[in-house]
Parts: sequence; structure tokens; C-alpha cells
Amino acid sequence: MVNKKNTPITGITVSKNEDFSAWYTELVKKAELADIRYNVKGFVVYMPWATITIKKMYRKYEDLLDKNGHMPLVMPSVIPESNFNLEADHVKGFAPEVFWVSEAGSEGEKLAERLALRPTSETALYKMYSYWIRSYNDLPFKRYQSCQVWRYEGKMTRPFFRGREFHWIEAHNCFATEEEAINQVKEDMEMTYTMLQDEFCIPIIFFERPQWDKFSGAVSTYAADALMGSGKVLQLPSTHLLGQNFAIPFNVKYVDKDGEEKYCFQTCYGPAISRIYGAMIAYLGDDKGLILPFDLAPLQIVIIPILIKNKEEIVLNKCKKLFEDLKEKYLVKFDDSEDSPGSKFYKWELKGVPLRIEIGPRDIEKNQVVIIKRHDGKKLFIKENELEKNIDKIANNYTRELKEKELLDFEEQIEICYEKDSAKKAIENGKIVCCGFCSIDMKAYPCAEKIEKELGAFVRGKKVTDEKHEFSTCIGCGEPATCAVYIAKSY
Amino acid sequence: MVNKKNTPITGITVSKNEDFSAWYTELVKKAELADIRYNVKGFVVYMPWATITIKKMYRKYEDLLDKNGHMPLVMPSVIPESNFNLEADHVKGFAPEVFWVSEAGSEGEKLAERLALRPTSETALYKMYSYWIRSYNDLPFKRYQSCQVWRYEGKMTRPFFRGREFHWIEAHNCFATEEEAINQVKEDMEMTYTMLQDEFCIPIIFFERPQWDKFSGAVSTYAADALMGSGKVLQLPSTHLLGQNFAIPFNVKYVDKDGEEKYCFQTCYGPAISRIYGAMIAYLGDDKGLILPFDLAPLQIVIIPILIKNKEEIVLNKCKKLFEDLKEKYLVKFDDSEDSPGSKFYKWELKGVPLRIEIGPRDIEKNQVVIIKRHDGKKLFIKENELEKNIDKIANNYTRELKEKELLDFEEQIEICYEKDSAKKAIENGKIVCCGFCSIDMKAYPCAEKIEKELGAFVRGKKVTDEKHEFSTCIGCGEPATCAVYIAKSY
Repeated sequence: MVNKKNTPITGITVSKNEDFSAWYTELVKKAELADIRYNVKGFVVYMPWATITIKKMYRKYEDLLDKNGHMPLVMPSVIPESNFNLEADHVKGFAPEVFWVSEAGSEGEKLAERLALRPTSETALYKMYSYWIRSYNDLPFKRYQSCQVWRYEGKMTRPFFRGREFHWIEAHNCFATEEEAINQVKEDMEMTYTMLQDEFCIPIIFFERPQWDKFSGAVSTYAADALMGSGKVLQLPSTHLLGQNFAIPFNVKYVDKDGEEKYCFQTCYGPAISRIYGAMIAYLGDDKGLILPFDLAPLQIVIIPILIKNKEEIVLNKCKKLFEDLKEKYLVKFDDSEDSPGSKFYKWELKGVPLRIEIGPRDIEKNQVVIIKRHDGKKLFIKENELEKNIDKIANNYTRELKEKELLDFEEQIEICYEKDSAKKAIENGKIVCCGFCSIDMKAYPCAEKIEKELGAFVRGKKVTDEKHEFSTCIGCGEPATCAVYIAKSY
Repeated sequence: MVNKKNTPITGITVSKNEDFSAWYTELVKKAELADIRYNVKGFVVYMPWATITIKKMYRKYEDLLDKNGHMPLVMPSVIPESNFNLEADHVKGFAPEVFWVSEAGSEGEKLAERLALRPTSETALYKMYSYWIRSYNDLPFKRYQSCQVWRYEGKMTRPFFRGREFHWIEAHNCFATEEEAINQVKEDMEMTYTMLQDEFCIPIIFFERPQWDKFSGAVSTYAADALMGSGKVLQLPSTHLLGQNFAIPFNVKYVDKDGEEKYCFQTCYGPAISRIYGAMIAYLGDDKGLILPFDLAPLQIVIIPILIKNKEEIVLNKCKKLFEDLKEKYLVKFDDSEDSPGSKFYKWELKGVPLRIEIGPRDIEKNQVVIIKRHDGKKLFIKENELEKNIDKIANNYTRELKEKELLDFEEQIEICYEKDSAKKAIENGKIVCCGFCSIDMKAYPCAEKIEKELGAFVRGKKVTDEKHEFSTCIGCGEPATCAVYIAKSY
């Protein structure tokens, strides 16, 4: 082999299992996903390798929203303070997180009214809805926008997971009846499963959040928790039943068939694409670096020549021909740089390229190529004349394999607990606890506070579907239980 | 015909030729492209019909940038004041237009440092470039982002044309030599011709802007003026040769092959997609409403049944079948609403749907369908068994026809003038004036001011290519001319 001189070990030096946080930081840095050196706290740069995947994720999500009857629009990113203040619970929840634009121009002229950088767009959009929605003919009214939002977060920020600016889609829908609104919430949950589980290979489960943890201004919130392994969860998209809480102050009304003016029922849904990206790379990655679903990889196939003296040309030509054959259909790179093969392997594994094709003189003699799958490291020897057919099959199966490998069995992570001490132990052992609770209404908040303090874990809420478990007493106060809840540590 | 009862005339009531401004306002409102009722001055909502087209324009532009070796990234949208102040001319030019974020949270806590909402991203990005670019191996370094920018505009705003928030792409490139930077400027101009003329059907011409009209901080600016007809122009994408003006204060350096540290040469390019959309609909539209290139239309084909009593079913079935045949390939709608055919014609002409297919009982008897092209109103009678082939041909030709019809002959709009009085008359007669000028350096600024005052028109600069005209004296001061310039009214 030639060119052994440039073989820097670029791999990750910390094990994911031993120190997730340090591993993630190295992954983000070494795979060149984000740069945290931007000189404003909580704001980071998304580098090309992450940006390309995030754009693909947006496209898939937008296509699904379009298919389900939503239409895209673009709202201003500033919200006048007077709009923002219209819904009392909402302003109470979001005011601490708002960045305010209060001056402009060279002299720092004060604006007549302060403008909030949107932390979310209900209070921008619903004032417009009061102009746009006139009659029952306009309903259902389903809109979304792809944009960024800003939140003056006090918590520790981490690239993609949590920052003061993040990139999301927000869908805002209006209906004539509460029933239709509830159906929309169900559709939102289905979309979430389709996108997060089937496309992005992140195992999730939906919980109805306790009242103390719902979206500010909502009637109720249904949130997907990603199962990150070891009993830890991460909140991903949530969908909110708003009832008429916003429709009344924002005057979102329609004239019904009977000629009467009625307030709409509303829902909103906010998949944070940048955060989902963070969850995906954190969940799927390993100690060699990124692992990505096939469709989402910026580069899907890399071809690496294995060069032996005096046989360079035949190998390079074979590689070039293969590159030409594949490039119409796949995102493919022929890496003919001067680095050593080993160094190239490291690099493209770190970057999460799904398939690596190696071609050396002996492979050419045997009329074969070698394909290595990134997600399981398996090596496949494929006859040259069967390559095209096989590549398509391997590509098509890649994401499905990844998903099947990675979808955690939720039940396996659960430990059923009847009292606090065993729950504490279960949490310490990396489990998600299922237990009885007095309720998920505000009156149960003291129990949740106690749990948080004593267990260092949070009440995630009631499972949305098929709750099989029943409990007689609340784990917090010992009073009769009205529901089963799940308690877990969270990122 | 049935259902004549709902036939509101939804068309535009003002003629574009008679009152462009009122016509544009009606177009934007009646075709539901933007809503100007958002309660912050200079900020508007982009409605779905415009948003869908703008997204398609972004995608085409991004694909071309990718093809030309740029990579996408995402920058924070706020810039710390200390970065912003690093390049003196830049800050002088942009400071009057900056919105400042200066407080956050419920109590309006003052931020340690004011944050500018980016008016453009040089001062955000180039600080990062100083980290990222190390050696000649990293060059050329070509990046872009798709984002919005904010400018505290004093001028009158108009939806899409000019607003305090607009949506653009900005590409920022670094090179080892000035020559490569100049070549990038040329590539940017070629991309602009490809996108604006070939894809968006807007006739443009590039001028090197006078020094008093260049981008703040640039060495020189090359800007596309859209030829809007009647001698008026509108500034569209511009590309800027930055030289080392930013590289020095931002420390954007590389180690060359000879081991020496050198400053990069930089360029930047900013196609404002929302503004280009405005120019496109303004330029292509007519008194019936929108006209759009085929690829950019949110809906490409609308099928309208012509119903006659007792023959409804056969017509509706035929339409439905056609809809099913076409929907895999095109964005098609079968409009079976209860409105009258005339009312449907109005509506979809207003919305700029490229092809309307009409099917009535007589067409079915003759085994034909009727296709009406929006851009020229031509009616085509197509045999049913030749429909598929013909639709493809008509669709493929639509944008080319539109372009050929709409590409103004620049030469025809020009009037050669040798002194101010004839130039004044030419401008009044809706011409673009070509004349001699002392130069386009700062020392010629008094001449330009005089022209602006006396002619109500602006020196757009020197034509970038093939200047055939020569002049002996400057139209402003009568001194010897060093170049030919073009003078025009602008939007």
C-alpha cells in the first residue's frame, strides 16, 4: 500500500457508554457538525455536514404535512408586545424566554413598541387568522411554517439539543368542533411516528403531559419522548390541544351553517428539526462517529481504491467507472485523495457515510467489489455483474435494518413500581418507572415536586395509548391513584 | 350551464399599464400572495400561494449553488455589536438599518452586549472563517446560507419588493488570489442569468455600480438590474468583490504552499429570493392576474368541467379520469366546485395556473379536450389519444415561450444621448439613457447628484460586457468622458 504517511487518527476518543456528554461534544466537533465558538452565548453555527441532513429532514417533514392538507406560509419573525400579551397563560409561560428588539438605527432610536423575537408564533399568527377565517367553508384551516425561533434559555445549552435559537416547523390549525381538533392531535402523533421512527430511526413514545408541564396556554399537551436508552428520555415534538383558549382573545371566529358566529377550536404542533437532528445523531451514533439513515446522509456511498504498486491504474480506472455508474442515482464520492486507506476509513466512518466500497487488485481478479455497511460493520462481497442490483437492495434495506436494530422495546425499559423506594432504585438502575399517581392535574403537582426532588426524575405523563397497568395508590402521597404515569430522567 | 349563481368578478380592476402601483397592490391582495395587515410596519405575511413558489425558487437556486461547489450552512441570526463594528465602511453603511436586540426576559434585563439582527452576514461569518481556513488546501472556500435578513428601511415598503424583513441566499467565498475572486464574480453573474432569465423569465443586465453605490465595504459591486419596461429598472442580485477589506480586520488568512501566511481574497453574492419573486410577478403578470413559469406554479394544470343538463356524469367521469392520469406527473386540480365555469376561469387565471383544460359534452363527442395557455391565452384542441404526448410538449415549452416573449431587447430600450437636455427627454419618454461620464469613481459623485436632481434618474453604472458605445464628454460636467454609463429610473 502507498501513502501511509498521512494517517492521523481522527476518530472519537471517548466512549459513548462511559461519558455520553463528552462523546457528544467530540462527535459534534470531529464530524464537523456544529461550531460552538460563535461569540454569542447559546448560539452556534450549523456546519455543512449537519445542514445538508437537516435540509433533507425538513423536506421529508414538509412533504408529509403537505400531503395531510397543510399549506405553508411565512410569518414575520417579530411579534409586537401588544399581540404577545393577549393570552395570559401564554405570556406568563413565555415572557421569561423572550429576546426583545427595542431599538433601531445608528442612534439607537427607541421603537414605539417593543418587538419580541418569536419564541413561537401563536400570537403572531392568530391575529391574522381572525382576518382570514370567515365561514365554515374555510375550515378546517391548516397552515405551517418552517422557521427558527429564539428562547432566552437559562439552562445549559448543547448544540442541536438545546440552544437560544433553534429551527423548527410549527403547524397551526383551526376547526369547527373539538372532535376535529382532537383528531388533528392524533394525526400529528401519527406523523411523528412516521417521521421519527420510520425515517429518522429514533424510538419514541407519546405521553399526555401533566397540567404543570403543558404548553403555556394549551388545554393539554401530547409530547413524544425519545427513548435514549438507560432509562433517559428527551422531549421531541409535541402537539397541543388549544381548545378556544387563544380563539377567544384573538377573535378567531367563523360563521357556521346556521348563520351564527362561533369560536374555532385550535391545535398546534411543533417538531423542532434541529433538536430532532441532535437526538438522531446522539441516539444512532457510536464510538466511531455518526450513523445516519440512508436517505439523510450527505454522502451515501464512498469508493476507496486499495492501491498496490504497479497496479494503481487498473484499480483507479475501475473505481472511476463505478463512480460514474452510481452517481446518477446516489450521492457518491470517489475518494482518490493521498490519504492512506485506513485514514479514509476513519474519516468516512466518522462522517457516517452508509456504504463504503473498497476495490483492490485482488477484487478485480475475482470480479468482485467489497461493500462495508456503516451501521453494523458487515462486509459484503458482491460479484461485479450483480453490483447494480445489489447496491439498490442494500441501499433500500439500510434504513429499515437500522430502525429494526435501534427501536428499543419500550416495555423492556419499564419497571413497575408500587412505592417510592423501589422507584428510586429503578431510576438509579437506568429504568423508566411506571407507577400509580393521584392525577396529572395541578393538584398533583406537590407529588411531582416530591418525586423530582427525591428521585431526580420527572413525571412524563400518561401513556397516550393502551395503558395496561393499573395502580391503587399514588406513589407520591399514598392517596388513591387515578392513573398510571411514567417517571424518567431526561436530557 | 348550471350554477351560474356564484359568479363574483374576482379579477383585477386596475390596468397594469395605467397604474402599476395600484395594479400590483391588487394583484398581491386578490391572488392572495401577501397580507399587509400584520401590525408591525414593513413586515408582511407571505401567503401559501406565494410561499410555495418562493420555496421552489429557493430549491432551484440552491441546487445550482451546490452544483457550483458551494456548501450550505446555518449561521445565528444575531451578530454581536463588537463583530459588527470591525469593518469601518461596512458599519457606516449598515448601522442606520440595524434592528438591535438589547434586552431579554420578563424584567427586560439588559444584555451585556447589544445584538444586531443580521442585515447581512459578513461580520458574523468572517470571524468563523478565521477559525476554519488554515491552509491553501482549504481554498477555494465556498459557503452559502438561505435565511432572512432585517433592515430598518426608511423607504416606502412594498410586499416582496422591499420590506424590513426579506428572504435571501447569501454566498460568501474565499480565494488565494484576486484572479480567482474575479472569476467567482463572473460565475455569480452567470448563475444570475441562468436563474433569473432562463428559469424566472425576468430580463436583466449587469452593471458595475459606481463607487458611491457599491456595497458597504466592497472594492466593487456588480448588480443585475431587471428591465421592467418603460425604461424603469429594479435592482436584483448583486455580487461583490471584497478584496481583502474584510479579510484583514477579520483575520481571514491561510498558509500558502511557500509556508507564508496570507490574507484571503473574498467575494459575496446575495440573491434576494423574495424580492426576485416580487419582480417576477410584477414583470410577468397582466390585467387578469399572475403569470408564472411552469415549474414554479403551485398548481400547473386545472381541469374544469363544462356541464350541460343530463350530461353531467359523462363529463365529470372524463375529467376525473384525466385528473388521475395527470396527477402523478403534474400539480393538477380537478375543480368540481359549484362555481360557474366563468368564475373558475377568472379564479385560476388570477392565480396564474399555466394550463386550463376544459371538457364539455361536445368535446367528448369529438374525442378532444381544450387546453388554454395562461400566458398567451391560446386555445388548443387536442385529440384525446394524443393528449399525454401533447401535454408534455406544451408543459415543456411553456416557460421557454414565456421567456422568449418577455425577454426585452435591451438595445431597443436604450437611447444614446450626448447632453443633458436630450437625456432628460429620453428619460421622460421611458427610455434608458446611455451616455458619457467622467468616471464611476467617487470624484464623479457630484455629476451623479446633478443628474439625479435634474433627471429624476440614477446612474446605474458601467455595462459589464461588450460596451460598444464611446463618448468624448461627460453628460454631467462636460469634462472628458472616461466611460459609458447607463441612467434609468428605478423602482
